[in-house]
Amino acid sequence: MTITPETIFTDVQAIRDTSPLVHNITNYVVMNNTANALLALGASPVMAHAEPEVADMAGIAGALVINIGTLSDPWIAGMFTAAKAAQAKGIPMVLDPVGAGATAYRTDTAKKLMQQCSPAILRGNGSEIMALGNQDATTKGVDSASAADLAIDTAKALNREHGSTVCITGEIDYIVHSDTVLQIRNGHAMMPRVTGLGCTASALCGAFAAVNPDPAAAAAHAMAVMGVAGEMAGRSAKGPGSFQMHFLDALYQISQPDIHQLFRK
Amino acid sequence: MTITPETIFTDVQAIRDTSPLVHNITNYVVMNNTANALLALGASPVMAHAEPEVADMAGIAGALVINIGTLSDPWIAGMFTAAKAAQAKGIPMVLDPVGAGATAYRTDTAKKLMQQCSPAILRGNGSEIMALGNQDATTKGVDSASAADLAIDTAKALNREHGSTVCITGEIDYIVHSDTVLQIRNGHAMMPRVTGLGCTASALCGAFAAVNPDPAAAAAHAMAVMGVAGEMAGRSAKGPGSFQMHFLDALYQISQPDIHQLFRK
Amino acid sequence: MTITPETIFTDVQAIRDTSPLVHNITNYVVMNNTANALLALGASPVMAHAEPEVADMAGIAGALVINIGTLSDPWIAGMFTAAKAAQAKGIPMVLDPVGAGATAYRTDTAKKLMQQCSPAILRGNGSEIMALGNQDATTKGVDSASAADLAIDTAKALNREHGSTVCITGEIDYIVHSDTVLQIRNGHAMMPRVTGLGCTASALCGAFAAVNPDPAAAAAHAMAVMGVAGEMAGRSAKGPGSFQMHFLDALYQISQPDIHQLFRK
Repeated sequence: MTITPETIFTDVQAIRDTSPLVHNITNYVVMNNTANALLALGASPVMAHAEPEVADMAGIAGALVINIGTLSDPWIAGMFTAAKAAQAKGIPMVLDPVGAGATAYRTDTAKKLMQQCSPAILRGNGSEIMALGNQDATTKGVDSASAADLAIDTAKALNREHGSTVCITGEIDYIVHSDTVLQIRNGHAMMPRVTGLGCTASALCGAFAAVNPDPAAAAAHAMAVMGVAGEMAGRSAKGPGSFQMHFLDALYQISQPDIHQLFRK
Repeated sequence: MTITPETIFTDVQAIRDTSPLVHNITNYVVMNNTANALLALGASPVMAHAEPEVADMAGIAGALVINIGTLSDPWIAGMFTAAKAAQAKGIPMVLDPVGAGATAYRTDTAKKLMQQCSPAILRGNGSEIMALGNQDATTKGVDSASAADLAIDTAKALNREHGSTVCITGEIDYIVHSDTVLQIRNGHAMMPRVTGLGCTASALCGAFAAVNPDPAAAAAHAMAVMGVAGEMAGRSAKGPGSFQMHFLDALYQISQPDIHQLFRK
Repeated sequence: MTITPETIFTDVQAIRDTSPLVHNITNYVVMNNTANALLALGASPVMAHAEPEVADMAGIAGALVINIGTLSDPWIAGMFTAAKAAQAKGIPMVLDPVGAGATAYRTDTAKKLMQQCSPAILRGNGSEIMALGNQDATTKGVDSASAADLAIDTAKALNREHGSTVCITGEIDYIVHSDTVLQIRNGHAMMPRVTGLGCTASALCGAFAAVNPDPAAAAAHAMAVMGVAGEMAGRSAKGPGSFQMHFLDALYQISQPDIHQLFRK
């Protein structure tokens, strides 16, 4: 798999041309900016979580994005129902295991979703990905380089077990599939200071997976667009408030020359 | 009914002078910007959805706005309880049937709310309004002019059956009441790229209905203010992120000269 | 207790240096901007409300913030479970009684939380604080000076009964603890036109309580930072939309000279 400015922009253009419906079951904190990010890029977001309708909604979507922040039992039920409907129809699913490792409730739910629903793409930060592995790895006191290595090892194991492309985001994003580890080096230091940009990254994975049948390419393209748009936003941001605004504008404006100029792997 | 810049601004001023309490039972995605839009215009928003308190809250409000996005069973129960409390006290209700037609759950809930609660104003896009009609109209392959005609026909039927003013929003907004169809031609191309501006339009219908006893005039005034504020925002927006920000500022700033200059019907 | 620009900035620096985890159980309307305000200042927000995980989450947090807007029964259960876990571990709790007085459901829940969980800090506007007192005070027709006096009297009684520092926000903020009443006179007229800035004030109380063991100082420092950031935002805001954006930027930028220049008590 080769990721180039051309392959990235081809998918951006496909999203703009076809406005794929992305069904999100996501947390309360980020629903608004997730929906806005998808709309700004050109996709068509819908949020629905209740058991009586999630199968209908997932069934008409181009991708399903499940995010376990602000989890509760009725939502977990909706997540499994939606995931199974998506699986039955061959609709790609993205899983964002927000806060896995912080509470047993989140770790267990994310592990069950991995086991029962085989997401096309799993996207999280290093500690969330490691929380889904079987080893008792802990990052406390481990320097960040070896932490990345540990997360990549876990990602490879998760990929072998579930077939999912695993996308580990951080200063460098790693897209792990089979034995390939692809790196994306775009992004901006202010991104972790805006809530939900990780969740937005997962939602964009959904939009790209809806137009590209290769989940590893979809995840890599999504991370490249996140990072490039972040750098565009960072040019004029004076803090996280203006960064969020410029970031949405950048997703709307992003062009092939922008990607050519800024993409780094 | 004649809508003029003067009638529009009279209601804007009344909202600013009396800060009517608008009780919203709305979806998770848009709660924040709906509340901000109402505050920016001068109204006083409150969000409350739980059965134990919705009747109390609706009973002290100037209007009740029910929006069925991100629906679930406990919320449906709250909607009916609130709607009946509002009806009993003569408090006008606005219904936004978000996503009606996409799932049976939403279509059925919206139809029951129409039947049992007779909203003063029903506001949706063309396909949502058509989903509430009895005909099996489908817009697939229908050109947009005839789609508008079909939606207007459904709106007239809904108005005859339930007495509700029906407001169909899109590039042109149609306010349908009795046999009158009023058009509002304001707005900006970037509005559909910001999540929840349709929900904001419904919330503003609530604010106007709280100060104007004629629901058709209230809906028309709300759509005019939405569209004029959208045009004001569009002057300096560089994308949907900055558009949303400028739109809230425009609702705060909007003056009689702005409306005189920009209002088009 | 003496509040000075130096004591305020010492806490700001401590938040930036240690990024305390602030566990919020808060309402749907404000989750996004609450999280963004905490991140902008340098704290680390987490939102979690479900009974199966709130005790785990509260147990690893530096502070717990409970906000009763958009209340429902499952959330009330989560609030008590989290509050008791925090109490057992000596983690400070902030209570924001949003809408107390508007419905019996909210007033009763807030009173029970006061009685059973003894928050370190109670923050609300004057009418919310008065709703938690035992007297049948009403502010209808009372001029605002005497309304403030009545709220302060209630705050003193609540402090005597529960030990909580009581923070009454408004044009002037009053921090009431034992027999001391401290005033903070910062802020900007546009703040009440942005939804959830009161909720943000409570969340910031949590961040300051996580780094300062004196709840009265924590509350005063939080109110000073809210007010100073509000004045910084007001310099360039053109309405509530741009105000919210500049406010988040100001929390990110706020420096010791800003506080020296603007702090007024």
